[in-house]
Amino acid sequence: MIKAAIIGATGYSGAVLAAILAHHKNVEIVSLVSKSYCGQLFSDIYKNFKGVLDIELETENIEEISKKADVIFLALPHGIASAKINEDILNNTKVIDLGADFRLNNKETYEKWYKTEHFGQNLLNEAVYGLPEWNFEKIKHARLVANPGCYATASILAVAPLLKEGIIYPDEIIIDAKSGVTGAGRGLNIDTLFCECNETIKPYKVASHRHTPEIEQILGDISKQNVLINFTPHLIPMNRGILASVYLKPNKDFELNDIKEIYKKYYKDKPFIRLLDEEAQTRWTKGTNYCDISIFKDTRTKRIMVFSAIDNLYKGASGQAVQNMNIMFNLNEKTALQNIAIFP
Amino acid sequence: MIKAAIIGATGYSGAVLAAILAHHKNVEIVSLVSKSYCGQLFSDIYKNFKGVLDIELETENIEEISKKADVIFLALPHGIASAKINEDILNNTKVIDLGADFRLNNKETYEKWYKTEHFGQNLLNEAVYGLPEWNFEKIKHARLVANPGCYATASILAVAPLLKEGIIYPDEIIIDAKSGVTGAGRGLNIDTLFCECNETIKPYKVASHRHTPEIEQILGDISKQNVLINFTPHLIPMNRGILASVYLKPNKDFELNDIKEIYKKYYKDKPFIRLLDEEAQTRWTKGTNYCDISIFKDTRTKRIMVFSAIDNLYKGASGQAVQNMNIMFNLNEKTALQNIAIFP
Amino acid sequence: MIKAAIIGATGYSGAVLAAILAHHKNVEIVSLVSKSYCGQLFSDIYKNFKGVLDIELETENIEEISKKADVIFLALPHGIASAKINEDILNNTKVIDLGADFRLNNKETYEKWYKTEHFGQNLLNEAVYGLPEWNFEKIKHARLVANPGCYATASILAVAPLLKEGIIYPDEIIIDAKSGVTGAGRGLNIDTLFCECNETIKPYKVASHRHTPEIEQILGDISKQNVLINFTPHLIPMNRGILASVYLKPNKDFELNDIKEIYKKYYKDKPFIRLLDEEAQTRWTKGTNYCDISIFKDTRTKRIMVFSAIDNLYKGASGQAVQNMNIMFNLNEKTALQNIAIFP
Amino acid sequence: MIKAAIIGATGYSGAVLAAILAHHKNVEIVSLVSKSYCGQLFSDIYKNFKGVLDIELETENIEEISKKADVIFLALPHGIASAKINEDILNNTKVIDLGADFRLNNKETYEKWYKTEHFGQNLLNEAVYGLPEWNFEKIKHARLVANPGCYATASILAVAPLLKEGIIYPDEIIIDAKSGVTGAGRGLNIDTLFCECNETIKPYKVASHRHTPEIEQILGDISKQNVLINFTPHLIPMNRGILASVYLKPNKDFELNDIKEIYKKYYKDKPFIRLLDEEAQTRWTKGTNYCDISIFKDTRTKRIMVFSAIDNLYKGASGQAVQNMNIMFNLNEKTALQNIAIFP
Repeated sequence: MIKAAIIGATGYSGAVLAAILAHHKNVEIVSLVSKSYCGQLFSDIYKNFKGVLDIELETENIEEISKKADVIFLALPHGIASAKINEDILNNTKVIDLGADFRLNNKETYEKWYKTEHFGQNLLNEAVYGLPEWNFEKIKHARLVANPGCYATASILAVAPLLKEGIIYPDEIIIDAKSGVTGAGRGLNIDTLFCECNETIKPYKVASHRHTPEIEQILGDISKQNVLINFTPHLIPMNRGILASVYLKPNKDFELNDIKEIYKKYYKDKPFIRLLDEEAQTRWTKGTNYCDISIFKDTRTKRIMVFSAIDNLYKGASGQAVQNMNIMFNLNEKTALQNIAIFP
Repeated sequence: MIKAAIIGATGYSGAVLAAILAHHKNVEIVSLVSKSYCGQLFSDIYKNFKGVLDIELETENIEEISKKADVIFLALPHGIASAKINEDILNNTKVIDLGADFRLNNKETYEKWYKTEHFGQNLLNEAVYGLPEWNFEKIKHARLVANPGCYATASILAVAPLLKEGIIYPDEIIIDAKSGVTGAGRGLNIDTLFCECNETIKPYKVASHRHTPEIEQILGDISKQNVLINFTPHLIPMNRGILASVYLKPNKDFELNDIKEIYKKYYKDKPFIRLLDEEAQTRWTKGTNYCDISIFKDTRTKRIMVFSAIDNLYKGASGQAVQNMNIMFNLNEKTALQNIAIFP
Repeated sequence: MIKAAIIGATGYSGAVLAAILAHHKNVEIVSLVSKSYCGQLFSDIYKNFKGVLDIELETENIEEISKKADVIFLALPHGIASAKINEDILNNTKVIDLGADFRLNNKETYEKWYKTEHFGQNLLNEAVYGLPEWNFEKIKHARLVANPGCYATASILAVAPLLKEGIIYPDEIIIDAKSGVTGAGRGLNIDTLFCECNETIKPYKVASHRHTPEIEQILGDISKQNVLINFTPHLIPMNRGILASVYLKPNKDFELNDIKEIYKKYYKDKPFIRLLDEEAQTRWTKGTNYCDISIFKDTRTKRIMVFSAIDNLYKGASGQAVQNMNIMFNLNEKTALQNIAIFP
Repeated sequence: MIKAAIIGATGYSGAVLAAILAHHKNVEIVSLVSKSYCGQLFSDIYKNFKGVLDIELETENIEEISKKADVIFLALPHGIASAKINEDILNNTKVIDLGADFRLNNKETYEKWYKTEHFGQNLLNEAVYGLPEWNFEKIKHARLVANPGCYATASILAVAPLLKEGIIYPDEIIIDAKSGVTGAGRGLNIDTLFCECNETIKPYKVASHRHTPEIEQILGDISKQNVLINFTPHLIPMNRGILASVYLKPNKDFELNDIKEIYKKYYKDKPFIRLLDEEAQTRWTKGTNYCDISIFKDTRTKRIMVFSAIDNLYKGASGQAVQNMNIMFNLNEKTALQNIAIFP
């Protein structure tokens, strides 16, 4: 049994992670850590765990936890993990960081976009970006995995095949993304009160969202070219789900079928990617690790539109973290992740 | 492997049933029947099943199906099952009817409330009411199980212990129930359009809802007395969940703790009932077979209030149907039903 | 022109009040006060007022305001108004308190339910309960009006006629109430985050909600008898609206039509009460000062069920406050309150 | 008093139109026509009109109506109006068509996108596109106004100033639009059932939505050049509101402030356009005729992003129709349209 710990268990992605791990046949949860609720039962905070995971929440002592856990999941706000993870910890245990601290490989870029100091520069090169569809082999041998951002997951999976094939302009990529409110986390904020989000839609962090450099870096790594994107997130009155609507400009006039073949080439063996003929929508991915992708062509403008839908807390966070863990521990990557979307 | 068929697979409870059975280790789905969509792939109607259950929907031929299936689930509007099920069918296969046709044991009561003829009177006595917490032994040996109504499940589980103990007035029971919109099914109806249900709440079928005689009959059977209830359903702008708020008048002034002990007495070994100290709410049961119950006393009026929360499509329909199947086939009743509620 | 000030303008009821007064032909807004946002433009907090009410929010100085305003609306948390309002203020201006401090006429009852000290005992007798349908004459001559609670408004209007006529048992009144999330206000609270309220329903403050003694006191005043109620509020995933479902036990078996005649007797001339034959629902009252009431009888149990629907921020708060102001200033009570409900 | 008739009064835009006209001081409603509900009271279909507009719905006889009405509003599915409106009708009355039949000035384009025959070709040149911010003078003298589509209104208002100034590429315009479910109308359709729309987001009619040629034609008329857009609508789980997120490519690197000055130049005197510094969102326009516009520049890609928010049933349909009527009858264009957005 893999002994797993979650630091930051009472945030939304921590809770979803606990739910997946609780039913993972190869995993034993040895520690749930929460700064805000330590000493309380996890099932008193998330009552859906009543009778299932009645574990007491601990204060964080990462050194101690690293000795008893085979893997530590960090589900923390950015800026904390970079100060906590070090060589000693990684000698004891594997680490999967659901936060942003080890996603960018350039300290300056991180500090510019996140406006905080990075304390773990020496680990930036070692950390592996945990997007299994494009990084499987590296993840397999990693000690430290940087789990991708939710928007980044949906965006990269939608764009990477065409960039990799070199058939779209790398500086003409427009990503209009829409997220449910869980993406904003469980912190207290007037903007995420029910009555402030319900019955409205808005863009936010226009031209300044922190997943922008992450998407550009990874797409650049995959396609070996500089990538420049327009990324705009929007807040949608629903709990879960991200839809990325991506507008791409091909460098000649391709047939839609040829475009679709490219996606099949890269994704046909990927268990969590479903290529759809009809429009992707978030509901079919809710509570699952799937990324549903559909591809269209506007025959008038020649532009290609790709829509990718994920559950932001699953493939966009905790599901993908478990997928990474499975790979790091040589399990079938689908283990504990074969749900059918909850609908209706 | 138990060979299972679902007749009425493309309604909401049919779809949830398919999702549970698809992951049931002892079950093989041999037939999905749909009148509206026969010939199409099930996964083209419910795209969450893409890659999971890409079965073609069949036209209904219950005789043929009864020969190849060990159990048939009927998820049909009322008035159909009573004409379809007969001795021949039951000699071939077990039947679990999610509809209303075999719940009431009196033909006249059925015809009065449902305003349609009943064609299977001879089976009314044989049919077993499939509420495992109160009818386990009978279910075990049943050929024909009448799966309880969603409101009836939440209501009966909330009231039965106190009635059985004889400490509340059986004609002073007020049940104010609230349901998500899936309870209205997938049929076309202006009243269930998004914009007609969203941002509003209303009562409906006041003093005339068909679960009323069902609740009274079963509570009467359990407590051996005539029971008369006030039952009022309300429609809530959410997809899933039922909350029953029950107001009971005790025949003397009991301590809350003594009342709670009664619930423990009847439910402590029931795997799907959770007795809570805080208010029950539907979110903790979503996508699970749990019925969460919390008990309060108003020290000023001496009245007892019981709140029970279920997922109307799980414990209120398809989850309970699988629980019944498990019992009928001598499996652990929890098999395939141990989900953690999807939250957030 | 009536010069009006709002103290607590940036809470939800303050904002709705400002919207009504901004279009009231007899009113000029002279001051908007906000503790949290003073110095900012009101239209920067509530951007729907952009170009309409670009007033700077002031710090509170009630003495000064009382000198320039003909009427002060207080929209504050309980426990504050009782310390602020005094004889000097009331000599300068009329006061309409949307909070709870002057609703109960007994200091001890207030302090027991609100768990805070009351500082304005001497004004408890003078304050008039601002429910115009039952208190019109007193409101007309009041200096200090206690605007009713939202739940209290819906509940009292539903029950009062039958109690007044003496045909129901005054200690067998069950009120199961449902409210949208605006009822919880704009304060920061994990329980009112979008993802915590959406897709669920729950009861709260069972047998302990503070509107209970208010409802009992006013119904007692109206019917000259002791009244004892069971009151249970529930939280519904929608912004606005309250539905009160009331269960009443008549002291003999009345015809439904006779019951309906009683409601007509008391309400036929009340401009904001609509007696409906079909089920009341909150959507038809949204953004209006209407209270829609529908009356049913369960012929089996003889019980009478009354459903009343209001917009909690209109008839349940700010609309009713303006109705009271209209009456206090000898205007037509409908002035500025003749909206048609926003639908869909 | 202007005598007004609505043909198609029981659709969503018909109902909102009736609400506006009912409170318009210069208008008397002389006829409400409904094919589906004729003979019933309008207030029995939309119960928010109870006590306000208890008019009987008539069958359609446009000739008769044209004799008694000064203006007829048509709120019908496309393909009907083109056969109904003719010279005789227009000699009797003014017509404002909320449908699509007279928006495109080319019969072939209409028939290609709408896949139905057009019967009123002779009126295509006479019909005036009713977007007052760009067509005020023509509307003033029109007999037949084609009221703009909801998406078209939000899109054109967002893009027109920069196109008119010639500073963006006219074939590099990407419009990613999001609409609430009222946009789909009140027809029976599984896709707009509550449980099918709630908690999900999807694109639809990708590269094929019928507002595409309308937007291109009008933008072309305004800027005297060929315009080619990518237009993608999405369905959002809310009742009302459209947000258009527009991505524009300037032909050189402009300062954001200069861009904003251009919007001020064209819109500073337009009463229903508000230029915001922060992100536009639909909630501040709900129930109003405002179009809120905010402008951003991505300094990395040089692209300009414009966000425009409207209430699809107000500025996107019925509010704009009344604005057009006001102009056609020489009233202040703001008459009856000065609401403050309903929030929360």
